[in-house]
Amino acid sequence: MQGCDVSPAPAFRFVRVQFAVPSPELDALCINTIRALSMDAVQKANSGHPGMPMGAAPMAHALWSRHLNFNPKNPNWFNRDRFVLSAGHGSMLLYSLLHLTGFEVSLDEIKRFRQLGSITPGHPEVGLTPGVEMATGPLGQGFATAVGMAIAERFLAATFNQPEHEIVDHFTYVIASDGDLMEGISNEAASLAGHQKLGKLIVLYDDNQITIDGSTSLSFSEDVGARFEALGWHVQKIDGMDVEAVDVALEKGKRTQDKPSLICAKTTIGFGSPNKAGTSKSHGAPLGVQEVKLAKEVLGIPVDEDFWRAPEAVEFYGSFSQKGVDLESDWNQQFSKFEVAIPELASKLKDAISSDIPIPIAWPTFSEAIQTRQAGWKCIQKIAHAMPTFLGGSADLAESNNTLIEGTSPMSAADPDGRNIYFGIREHAMAAATNGMNLHGGMKAFCATFLIFSDYCRPSIRLAALMHCPTVFVFTHDSIGVGEDGPTHQPIEHYMSLRAIPNLNFMRPADGNETAACWAVALESEETPSVLALTRQAVQSLTPNDIENHPARQGGYVLKEAENELQVVLVATGSEVALACEARKLLESQGIGTRVVSLPSWFLFGHQTNEYQESVLSSDIPTVSIEMGATLGWQKYASHHVGLDTFGESAPLKDLLVHFGFTAERVAEVARVAILGVRPTMSAL
Amino acid sequence: MQGCDVSPAPAFRFVRVQFAVPSPELDALCINTIRALSMDAVQKANSGHPGMPMGAAPMAHALWSRHLNFNPKNPNWFNRDRFVLSAGHGSMLLYSLLHLTGFEVSLDEIKRFRQLGSITPGHPEVGLTPGVEMATGPLGQGFATAVGMAIAERFLAATFNQPEHEIVDHFTYVIASDGDLMEGISNEAASLAGHQKLGKLIVLYDDNQITIDGSTSLSFSEDVGARFEALGWHVQKIDGMDVEAVDVALEKGKRTQDKPSLICAKTTIGFGSPNKAGTSKSHGAPLGVQEVKLAKEVLGIPVDEDFWRAPEAVEFYGSFSQKGVDLESDWNQQFSKFEVAIPELASKLKDAISSDIPIPIAWPTFSEAIQTRQAGWKCIQKIAHAMPTFLGGSADLAESNNTLIEGTSPMSAADPDGRNIYFGIREHAMAAATNGMNLHGGMKAFCATFLIFSDYCRPSIRLAALMHCPTVFVFTHDSIGVGEDGPTHQPIEHYMSLRAIPNLNFMRPADGNETAACWAVALESEETPSVLALTRQAVQSLTPNDIENHPARQGGYVLKEAENELQVVLVATGSEVALACEARKLLESQGIGTRVVSLPSWFLFGHQTNEYQESVLSSDIPTVSIEMGATLGWQKYASHHVGLDTFGESAPLKDLLVHFGFTAERVAEVARVAILGVRPTMSAL
Repeated sequence: MQGCDVSPAPAFRFVRVQFAVPSPELDALCINTIRALSMDAVQKANSGHPGMPMGAAPMAHALWSRHLNFNPKNPNWFNRDRFVLSAGHGSMLLYSLLHLTGFEVSLDEIKRFRQLGSITPGHPEVGLTPGVEMATGPLGQGFATAVGMAIAERFLAATFNQPEHEIVDHFTYVIASDGDLMEGISNEAASLAGHQKLGKLIVLYDDNQITIDGSTSLSFSEDVGARFEALGWHVQKIDGMDVEAVDVALEKGKRTQDKPSLICAKTTIGFGSPNKAGTSKSHGAPLGVQEVKLAKEVLGIPVDEDFWRAPEAVEFYGSFSQKGVDLESDWNQQFSKFEVAIPELASKLKDAISSDIPIPIAWPTFSEAIQTRQAGWKCIQKIAHAMPTFLGGSADLAESNNTLIEGTSPMSAADPDGRNIYFGIREHAMAAATNGMNLHGGMKAFCATFLIFSDYCRPSIRLAALMHCPTVFVFTHDSIGVGEDGPTHQPIEHYMSLRAIPNLNFMRPADGNETAACWAVALESEETPSVLALTRQAVQSLTPNDIENHPARQGGYVLKEAENELQVVLVATGSEVALACEARKLLESQGIGTRVVSLPSWFLFGHQTNEYQESVLSSDIPTVSIEMGATLGWQKYASHHVGLDTFGESAPLKDLLVHFGFTAERVAEVARVAILGVRPTMSAL
Repeated sequence: MQGCDVSPAPAFRFVRVQFAVPSPELDALCINTIRALSMDAVQKANSGHPGMPMGAAPMAHALWSRHLNFNPKNPNWFNRDRFVLSAGHGSMLLYSLLHLTGFEVSLDEIKRFRQLGSITPGHPEVGLTPGVEMATGPLGQGFATAVGMAIAERFLAATFNQPEHEIVDHFTYVIASDGDLMEGISNEAASLAGHQKLGKLIVLYDDNQITIDGSTSLSFSEDVGARFEALGWHVQKIDGMDVEAVDVALEKGKRTQDKPSLICAKTTIGFGSPNKAGTSKSHGAPLGVQEVKLAKEVLGIPVDEDFWRAPEAVEFYGSFSQKGVDLESDWNQQFSKFEVAIPELASKLKDAISSDIPIPIAWPTFSEAIQTRQAGWKCIQKIAHAMPTFLGGSADLAESNNTLIEGTSPMSAADPDGRNIYFGIREHAMAAATNGMNLHGGMKAFCATFLIFSDYCRPSIRLAALMHCPTVFVFTHDSIGVGEDGPTHQPIEHYMSLRAIPNLNFMRPADGNETAACWAVALESEETPSVLALTRQAVQSLTPNDIENHPARQGGYVLKEAENELQVVLVATGSEVALACEARKLLESQGIGTRVVSLPSWFLFGHQTNEYQESVLSSDIPTVSIEMGATLGWQKYASHHVGLDTFGESAPLKDLLVHFGFTAERVAEVARVAILGVRPTMSAL
């Protein structure tokens, strides 16, 4: 393991409280306390994963007791080190540490592990449990999200720190498992981290050689260390059961500033359990009452005491609350000096940390036909101008997605404050890393690809929704409007399958002004991630140009009321709203009163009052939906459908529109059928 | 680049027609013919990717003219080498080769590149164009699917070949781009291929250092070769513009039998184009009329002739049809000898090749309560017993998914005929590789994980549907029935978002017998992939035990008719069917006639006659849907819903059922509301 410089220790740039190194005996008591709590909590819940905490307790203890900067009394202290337990199934490891070091995680909550309403769920959930940085469990997500946190730290440091004012300055630590490193997302993220030379990202790899199916030799024989070296990482291989070895490796990792660090730590899963240690039997099920007793015996833990905590460990860990308070207090003093010295910059950083969105933003307005991806680009420029910590990037489609921020450079190790991130063709890591930036705080980050490739990052989109992390996903080329690239590149089921994710605001704006309104909603969102589905092709300007009060903010609205007596409603999204208007013209010319409803966001519309919803879409009036995608789900709002329930085709768009029936004539025809009250057949419903 | 043995050339085991090596001049004419066709087709379509074919033409020519075994007159000849253009955007490279070597791809079709109804769509589509092995375009898919093809070849060879009867014996070749190798799926697949030591898999990496955004240096600075060596691959680095170098590297790759081969071939994207070669400008757009002329000048191609083909190239490539016919004919003779010598085995291989499903399979039946994952396991045993080429595996959840085939070993290099594949924690590569096995033919392959992790392999599930590839996806732990593992592991939106994919048969059986019926449907499917969503928890036996004629084959059916006068229909899937039956009992006891409909497959139900559908679910009768997932979409069949539009919780299932209202009392309450004709509010629709 070689090939990179180990620089001298960085001079700490604000006064850090020194960690008192405990004796080996005290270390052992701390580690066994974590093991005891983990075994017992899993046993009491009769569900969970004891093996990982028992094996990884030494490395976690070394990290938390000797390196990690945090404040249990303020889990959100901005300059804390970030710690991500990527192997989220080992949640009891984290809960034990949070409990012992003084976060608001009581012993009662430990005893309520995995019970309804507890703050100790099966896998960690951010927002629920103080000190949990993100939800983990789906493997690889923690690793990739942490890459985003490390990017955020470096970006903010580069943007705000000044000589003698190193305000943003922390590490990002991860504990990852075999499973994390087998997932493709982690390779994408590791390749990105290596490319970006994220020197303050340190990953402890819990190399216990066991997965659920048994030995990793069944499926996993690669040289992980060599792979990471090829990806540009600093790699060490150590005995993960040896606290001193972990300590030294962490120190080396911290001093290696030009590369992210992987510490391959050999551990024994279920350490202590005489019959299950080192096997998959200790992975995902309680050890069993008898085996817990035997393990306690082996470890020298009182056998008959449930939820035992060594008094020495309680005392030692108990000191971390005050240490944390002192750390934050030192930092606050540093910040005060910064404010005095460079008030304008300090004020900007304060705004960024408090997530204040500068209002009003000078939203662009549109009276001309425009691709909504291009309208989105204009919004991005306005936001970027107003918010110095707004940034983002694309998975190698920056010019197609229209997401490049003007007047800034590509983010790199040489330009860490560049605001255009070139994620490479790594959609999954991109989405997770962007979540990581937003979870880190101090910035608003978006990412972009084609809508079809939202499938590649779906687990991270879901996780954003679950974590209430307001990431903005810009997904362009949002329909068969892709044209010649054909069915592999044309989304069909994607609208509905994104709408089905709880707490995800999928928005498909109809024109430039709606695009700006949707961007505004996305930017202002604090608890909900947003998808902006934007067109490749130009669409006419149809909607009001008052962005602050745009009716799209209600999710859906009457764009054009009937002129003749109302007989039918045409409800559409995105580029199909123009088609609805065209069909309306045709129908009105035949004396058929036709309302056009634009419904860019089902999420927002669903949050309006019933009265409002009924005033827009009444179930008493024949209603035709128009969307170039799956009709499944449109039954919620419409009786008849012009949609697309097959895959697309490769051809120029104009040919596809005729081929698939997206013409005013066909829409008008379906509208007339709807008015006649002809019930669609079940299969067409 | 070292570290593995290069074995002596394998003795060809059936007489292969020797390739005549053309002169360098002829090579150049062939290569320029491919370039000319590619440039011109893209220019005529005014859309497409000229750069990749122009840069990769030399390596593709070397492969096709000197190594690849194929029969243009029978693209489906079973023992052909498989060729996958993972970089599917370079489709004109493939179409040019197919056209020139005598497949049914006419010059007219080349001229209709990317037009409606042509067989030359923007990205290759299997089933549409003779000689195309799979649909590619979404990056990484081709690479990972090819790993499955190589697994299939080795498995079949190990299963059927005998001394002096080496019937299954071919290579799998891939051309992959930077983008392919940046995607996480390809790292998963490469790690799996390395672990499995797939010596007959050879990947040409078109290392042109350009992606859409520009130079790969913007985002991609890893050492790809070193990464693949760490993954257990044989790696060579060559000049990809040098036909002889490619030839030698391919030969070395073929001789390396204990490792898959990666040939890193440096190329120049858009080679020949004086103003765009070596830049992203040649990647994804026509060169332009003037630049095409200039490129032709540089390359020595007649400037004013569109779709020029060098007569010498036409003649040379024209000989491949006869060569192909001879190859297949030799193989047929070998097969005949095999049939004479070992008739029983030969007959089994014939069955396997023709995809004949042995009928009847001794399906298990169930009268007891059982977890449907466990019922699925019993089905798997029966199928495996009847079909020697039925195999599959799980992404490290074999025991949880209940998918281990008894009486066979884990597949490995030492046991290549093992029928349990340990895919590792690599869901995405698993799904793609399983597609590859089924596309290869001669076998029926399934794969498995938790339903929640279907998100990790969604792009490959979609591609299976698009390719009409009947892969079986076994997704267990299909609801909040997961219990304590909590919201990161509990599917919510997954039912509906899988149902929305065209040509995907999502099935969620209600009990053991329905599970067997759904497995039967999945096994018999020839054009449609299937998802089996199975429970973690036990469900009672409710449905008929005649698997061959089980009404679940219609997708939905009346399980229990009303006893009192019919007033309400309860329609449910999976474990909720039992809940519907319980609620029915309650309602009937109150004199309310209640029908219970089991609807395991919306796909199959949608293919029944309207009369049948109406006889099961009539829009005239108040109908309540019951499913522990998103209600979006259920408006198609029901007026009222008992569903779950939020994320789940970590708790024992019994607590979750009460918490989320999945009780007979609540269902009965909603049914009474439905009967009263109370229209649900818009947001509850």
